[in-house]
Amino acid sequence: MEINFYIPTKVIMKRNCVLDNSSLIASYGKKAMIVTGKHSASLNGSLDDVEKTLKAKNIEYVLFNKVMANPTIDLVYEGAKIAVLEKVDFIIAIGGGSPMDAAKAIALLAKNDIKEEDLFTTTITNNVLPMIFIPTTAGTGSEVTEYSILTNDKLETKSTIASPYLFPNLALLDGKYMNSLGKATTINTCLDALCHAIEGYLSIKATSLTKALSVEALKIIASEFDNLKAFNLTTDDRDKLLYASTLAGIVIAHCGTVAVHILGYSLTYYKKIDHGRANGLLLGKFLERVSAEKQELINEILEALSMNSLKELEDKIDSLLGEKEKLTEEEIDNYATKGFAVPKLKNTIINLTKDDLKNILEKSMRG
Amino acid sequence: MEINFYIPTKVIMKRNCVLDNSSLIASYGKKAMIVTGKHSASLNGSLDDVEKTLKAKNIEYVLFNKVMANPTIDLVYEGAKIAVLEKVDFIIAIGGGSPMDAAKAIALLAKNDIKEEDLFTTTITNNVLPMIFIPTTAGTGSEVTEYSILTNDKLETKSTIASPYLFPNLALLDGKYMNSLGKATTINTCLDALCHAIEGYLSIKATSLTKALSVEALKIIASEFDNLKAFNLTTDDRDKLLYASTLAGIVIAHCGTVAVHILGYSLTYYKKIDHGRANGLLLGKFLERVSAEKQELINEILEALSMNSLKELEDKIDSLLGEKEKLTEEEIDNYATKGFAVPKLKNTIINLTKDDLKNILEKSMRG
Repeated sequence: MEINFYIPTKVIMKRNCVLDNSSLIASYGKKAMIVTGKHSASLNGSLDDVEKTLKAKNIEYVLFNKVMANPTIDLVYEGAKIAVLEKVDFIIAIGGGSPMDAAKAIALLAKNDIKEEDLFTTTITNNVLPMIFIPTTAGTGSEVTEYSILTNDKLETKSTIASPYLFPNLALLDGKYMNSLGKATTINTCLDALCHAIEGYLSIKATSLTKALSVEALKIIASEFDNLKAFNLTTDDRDKLLYASTLAGIVIAHCGTVAVHILGYSLTYYKKIDHGRANGLLLGKFLERVSAEKQELINEILEALSMNSLKELEDKIDSLLGEKEKLTEEEIDNYATKGFAVPKLKNTIINLTKDDLKNILEKSMRG
Repeated sequence: MEINFYIPTKVIMKRNCVLDNSSLIASYGKKAMIVTGKHSASLNGSLDDVEKTLKAKNIEYVLFNKVMANPTIDLVYEGAKIAVLEKVDFIIAIGGGSPMDAAKAIALLAKNDIKEEDLFTTTITNNVLPMIFIPTTAGTGSEVTEYSILTNDKLETKSTIASPYLFPNLALLDGKYMNSLGKATTINTCLDALCHAIEGYLSIKATSLTKALSVEALKIIASEFDNLKAFNLTTDDRDKLLYASTLAGIVIAHCGTVAVHILGYSLTYYKKIDHGRANGLLLGKFLERVSAEKQELINEILEALSMNSLKELEDKIDSLLGEKEKLTEEEIDNYATKGFAVPKLKNTIINLTKDDLKNILEKSMRG
């Protein structure tokens, strides 16, 4: 029996936990840098709560609200430069995966002199700025992972910086910040969390413990499918989806993602398909391929979801996705080739050939 | 929905994980203090593995192998004095709950000047020596908790030092060190883990996440009941019991224990009944009392154990306990009075009166 478990992040989920943990937040330093996107943190109330909390504790702060979807390398170097110039003690990230992943890279680069060409390959041996993460979507799980995933224009995909130093120190979870999220983003992020829980389950790194956490996440997501479809979500439902997403984040912190995410990155890079949606588009056909060799694992996943067949799951996902984007034969061949070259494809519990990847893309999205 | 989760300990379970993680162990410093008991670490091979690993990495070490069962306050002050004199960088604890809990107090006192009378009440604000824990029983869960539980002769019970600083940095789990454990200790420690999983489930601090971990622990313990009874355990079975014990440790790190442990401490202090056995003796009747008000929670626990009734669980436990120790009416009254005065009794999911505690003791152990 093998178990690895390491999540040094302190996780607190509770209504108004940002406002109610001002002393804890203040324990990280005297000057903060808030890393977020242009609008959503203002609209959903999270930025306001953070600013109130910092002011109440006389903590200075710089607002860096330039993070775009799928953040670039230039952006994180720019953020790090400001963090150094402004001598901030810690980072507060507010938002979805993009601000959170950008914040990790900024926290890293503010304390480590790393050249751009070494960013995805260097081994990090030095500490980074302390980080407090406040997710405002329920999908990425970045608040409990050691990954910062950035757009890599050189490789025309997303690339990952991974290090135990990149775990946030504190994650503050409050579903109320998700009440203003639109239907598409809510669904896409939930599909991302669903893929995290399932891909982690089907990784060669899965353990009894990560599987138990996947099962817990899948039960919750399944219980919210109908509310998602009807887009009828209370703040408690939002909490549940956020909890499931954090659980699924703990899963991928240990197992990583596998083939679905690998292929999904091309859909996002080349076709501008939202990250979670990209994964959701591919999940069903990937699971069909796995079921040919590992039916017992698929059955365990279906049991957690309280579903009787893969078809039932695929129909549910399809009903959330609506009309699907189409790919040309050339695109399919191109993305399969790219995906097949990714080393971590080997983490998938079954051996996948390039033809397998083509088939998954073809069956999912052939025009 | 409320979740708190914080386990900063890095957990590695794998056969030969001590020998195979020498570089990680060496990253904690140049001089170690090994905290353990007189004999068991020598007999089960764990001390040998640790010494080999330290020598291979040229790490000096001091051996402090004086920890008795139910360690005293004097002992931990003595250990801390040696740690300071010898200028050790980190602590390696090997053994069951006694060496592990003593090691935490030693790591604390080596870096913090705390008077004996303040030991259980002071708020710890300073760091402690880094700690590596190698459990050689599967029960205490101390490798993933922030508690150090010591014999407190002033209060005639066991008392707890609790602080986030007391989480070990690293837990190395290998069931092979348990192969030489005798039947009684194996059963008693497993009963302790069983109580941790169940008491945590019945604590007011339980969350969806801790409950999921309790369920996972209970499933595994239930699957090993028959092997335990027959005392027919492979090293893989030992791994499973250790995994369950660590899971249950993560549960009590968040939820604490409740009425069973509170009463059990008196059985250990006054009657010299082994800690795990003491809890096992009381668990069934405690659950009967809970079932009168919270049958649904008891049903969830029974479902995790794949059992149909509390009686089935009680019979299983009884078959492991054998002949039970008896208490006089005076002892029962005394222990109920003591237990009722413990503030954390209020963490139990139902309100317990002093008469409830008397009844639990009486039904469990009346002579």
